[in-house]
Amino acid sequence: MTVLVVGGLREEHFASTLRAVSGDLEVRVSPNIGRKEDIRYALAWEPPPGLLKTLPNLELIVSVGAGVDHLFRDPELPEVPVVRFVDADLTGRMVEFVVLNVLLHHRRMTEFREQQSKVEWKYLPEPASHDVRVGIMGLGVLGGAASQALAKLGYRLRGWSRTEKRVDGVDCYFGNQLDAFLAETDVLVVLLPLTSETRGLINRNLLAKLSQRGRDERLPGPVLINAGRGGLQVESDILAALDIGQLYAASLDVFETEPLPETSPLWRHPRVVITPHCAAESDPRAIADYTIAQIEALRRGERLKHVVDRTRGY
Amino acid sequence: MTVLVVGGLREEHFASTLRAVSGDLEVRVSPNIGRKEDIRYALAWEPPPGLLKTLPNLELIVSVGAGVDHLFRDPELPEVPVVRFVDADLTGRMVEFVVLNVLLHHRRMTEFREQQSKVEWKYLPEPASHDVRVGIMGLGVLGGAASQALAKLGYRLRGWSRTEKRVDGVDCYFGNQLDAFLAETDVLVVLLPLTSETRGLINRNLLAKLSQRGRDERLPGPVLINAGRGGLQVESDILAALDIGQLYAASLDVFETEPLPETSPLWRHPRVVITPHCAAESDPRAIADYTIAQIEALRRGERLKHVVDRTRGY
Repeated sequence: MTVLVVGGLREEHFASTLRAVSGDLEVRVSPNIGRKEDIRYALAWEPPPGLLKTLPNLELIVSVGAGVDHLFRDPELPEVPVVRFVDADLTGRMVEFVVLNVLLHHRRMTEFREQQSKVEWKYLPEPASHDVRVGIMGLGVLGGAASQALAKLGYRLRGWSRTEKRVDGVDCYFGNQLDAFLAETDVLVVLLPLTSETRGLINRNLLAKLSQRGRDERLPGPVLINAGRGGLQVESDILAALDIGQLYAASLDVFETEPLPETSPLWRHPRVVITPHCAAESDPRAIADYTIAQIEALRRGERLKHVVDRTRGY
Repeated sequence: MTVLVVGGLREEHFASTLRAVSGDLEVRVSPNIGRKEDIRYALAWEPPPGLLKTLPNLELIVSVGAGVDHLFRDPELPEVPVVRFVDADLTGRMVEFVVLNVLLHHRRMTEFREQQSKVEWKYLPEPASHDVRVGIMGLGVLGGAASQALAKLGYRLRGWSRTEKRVDGVDCYFGNQLDAFLAETDVLVVLLPLTSETRGLINRNLLAKLSQRGRDERLPGPVLINAGRGGLQVESDILAALDIGQLYAASLDVFETEPLPETSPLWRHPRVVITPHCAAESDPRAIADYTIAQIEALRRGERLKHVVDRTRGY
């Protein structure tokens, strides 16, 4: 039983953890594939296009991340099940990132930071959390968990998903109700998968539809938080929206090009918070446990969890 | 029935809200006291020393804030009941502030901010929340609520209070168990009242006792968050602890002198987050409702809630 670890940023780390956790798996790291017939399973981030289809006995591909768009950059990805990484540790980290960044802008911390840099002591009014409407795009495992954590802090929650979903305490919109959702949203949290339908969705047109309601006792304007994928956003449109005040602030963990190029004006915007795609790092131990559990389920002939639907792309 | 609003930063705002909410209260704002015999109740932040004792029919003093140390700066405060302001809105804002600042340091946001200012894209390891031990000093209404919100995010909670308390999911220490509490704490959240016993408690000696455990996969060092009172802390000791690495970072909302003097090096420390005593602003409407409820309870001869014990000072 051989696993290939391939196309990731930390292959050796993932491979050594997998070896330590598993009793009977042989673990190889690309490009040292050895006899291709041995490989039954692949733990993959962004494998070299065409590589996986050369493995004749491949039965399963496990994604190192919650998203799988990077896998489908390989146009010849073999027709075996692909499973997304879903894990309590990763979900917890994403919830932390979302809660942190909603609080950060609600409590006007980029402005307090600017004031601190100018040695300025000045009170700024902050709305109560029940006057802040947080809208989450993408109501899967991550969006669902984030909405629950935010609701406990008193925020008013709404969510939008491609297909109809119900989440406790969240006003749910779906499909073509996107405009109504945006009109009721002060803080937009993007946790969508990147697919052909969602690419470039966070653009000028969408940002212009965010609530621009009166500002007394409220946030100075809408906020964007993208912890999904950089391909969802049009960065020049985000900058334009910030410049004309259509957006008050943004937290971006993902970018059209990563690392974010040094020339991007996003780096220098006082109300943009940039993190280097670390909102929810996959824990090697959690990845190892998950991979082994999926392989064992496959061996026992059980139904796999979190299998990607290739027609929808996630 | 006349209320005097006195010694606050926003007396007119509090007074006009009180007038709008109350049917039959007359509201006066110091120094326009009028006939002193009329005043039965005082809504006060820091009244001029000696003023309140000149009101012969005063029956009740309501504090504008959760703390009352500012009231007791008046050595001749009359011997009528003093009630602290306890309110869901204020509690919620304090919980937000604590959760925000714990997350901010746990997720290394001051370092990411520095990297952003240098246009640097670099991954930094962050521990899982269940590997971060948050210790709360002060387990009253605010500390209790903050501990519950943090526990829901996966943090390991401990608390210390002057007298023995029990809080669900929190390892509770009290009295002379302070050293044991500090040795098990990575992020210290200070929500104590300022009394003769607690003044200057957050000093070199205390900071040296915080956990300095190994750093793999953990925070780079202990963190201090003070949202209580500035008089609890010795700022020169905090700076020294930051300089020698005994503290990794700090969030301070309160200071020995407020506004924080421009000459303070705290302003310029890259891992110190400064906010202008705004962690939990008292909402005028909530203050008005609370004041009226306390006055009505007093009139009906009921037991008042949140009465200050003058021997302990809170």
